[in-house]
Amino acid sequence: MLPVITAFAQSPDRGRGQARDMRVRWALEEVGQPYDVELVTFEEMKAAPYRARQPFGQIPTFREGELILFESGAILHHIATTRAGLLPETDPGRARAIMWMFAALSTLEPVILERETAVLLERDEPWHESRLPRLDARVEKRLSELAAALGDRDWLEDGFTAGDLMMVSVLRRLKTSGLLSRFPALEAYVARGEARPAFIRAFAAQKAVFDALAARG
Amino acid sequence: MLPVITAFAQSPDRGRGQARDMRVRWALEEVGQPYDVELVTFEEMKAAPYRARQPFGQIPTFREGELILFESGAILHHIATTRAGLLPETDPGRARAIMWMFAALSTLEPVILERETAVLLERDEPWHESRLPRLDARVEKRLSELAAALGDRDWLEDGFTAGDLMMVSVLRRLKTSGLLSRFPALEAYVARGEARPAFIRAFAAQKAVFDALAARG
Repeated sequence: MLPVITAFAQSPDRGRGQARDMRVRWALEEVGQPYDVELVTFEEMKAAPYRARQPFGQIPTFREGELILFESGAILHHIATTRAGLLPETDPGRARAIMWMFAALSTLEPVILERETAVLLERDEPWHESRLPRLDARVEKRLSELAAALGDRDWLEDGFTAGDLMMVSVLRRLKTSGLLSRFPALEAYVARGEARPAFIRAFAAQKAVFDALAARG
Repeated sequence: MLPVITAFAQSPDRGRGQARDMRVRWALEEVGQPYDVELVTFEEMKAAPYRARQPFGQIPTFREGELILFESGAILHHIATTRAGLLPETDPGRARAIMWMFAALSTLEPVILERETAVLLERDEPWHESRLPRLDARVEKRLSELAAALGDRDWLEDGFTAGDLMMVSVLRRLKTSGLLSRFPALEAYVARGEARPAFIRAFAAQKAVFDALAARG
């Protein structure tokens, strides 16, 4: 029995790989673990049977045998600690790689999501134009600190880890914001992630879901 | 050599245990690990020597031998995976407990922090009064879902875990918001966490830093 993940039947990002199943697909490709996908509609995600496994009504979930997980961070952690390829075997490297997963989710993603939420939900409000520069500044502060931490290295520690996988995934949310291009080192870092064969396979797999939907009209 | 954590020399919360060193102190108390504390001023936190170990200029950090970690989630994860007492030994319980740590940090804390940031930084803006009910609604949605997931159990899975430690810590940020009291099951859940002897010892330790500062005038 292959592990099964859930993903949007109709992804709101039109196949651009911004939905959080992309992180899990990428991780599964990195470790060479085949998987099945169960597509769920928005209605199904919010209904009781799905909420029994994902109380917050979101994708992705991950099921393997009797284990059911949600939260892309937790699923990535599980994949990385049960298969070889995404974490060093020993500390300090292993703990440092896991640390960067938390940094991506706790220090970078919240300010990026706050800006994204404002652009999506408050775009027509009278205050949006005044607020946006502050939200940009909060994101830029973190990007500047991250760029300093990365320095001129290819990855955050020695070699690609689950920490880079999550950090690149979070930074990709900024693609249409114009903010990432102010930090060429981070733009190059994201490009290195996207050039990995496992990323390319995962991206194609999630895009195929959207393309099949579009072809059916 | 004991592990050393960093904490605010002058905590902005006046000893109410809202700073993120509290999560780490609590975890260390739960596993019975003595520790030392290095207090850092705001100036020190933002200067280059501190940023060499914490690129985002925040507390807490954790140092043990050659390992240096930041991010309270990563530090809790390290403590919980290197000492007994905060995680079940085997899956699925172990992976589920780690999952709730990620849920606390990725699904609950961002909406709570977004509200907190608005109250702290945008309180005097003309839009604040119109925006606040939306921010409250975003928090309440997650609280309602979490309350449903908790049901009538004492803890999120079977027995107290690192997942509960992080979730209770995140929910405690809502203490002055009035939002938590709309969910009596969650208020009782937080109270159960705060009644644990390890919590009480950790709370006293961080409060002593503030009390000593206040006594010096």
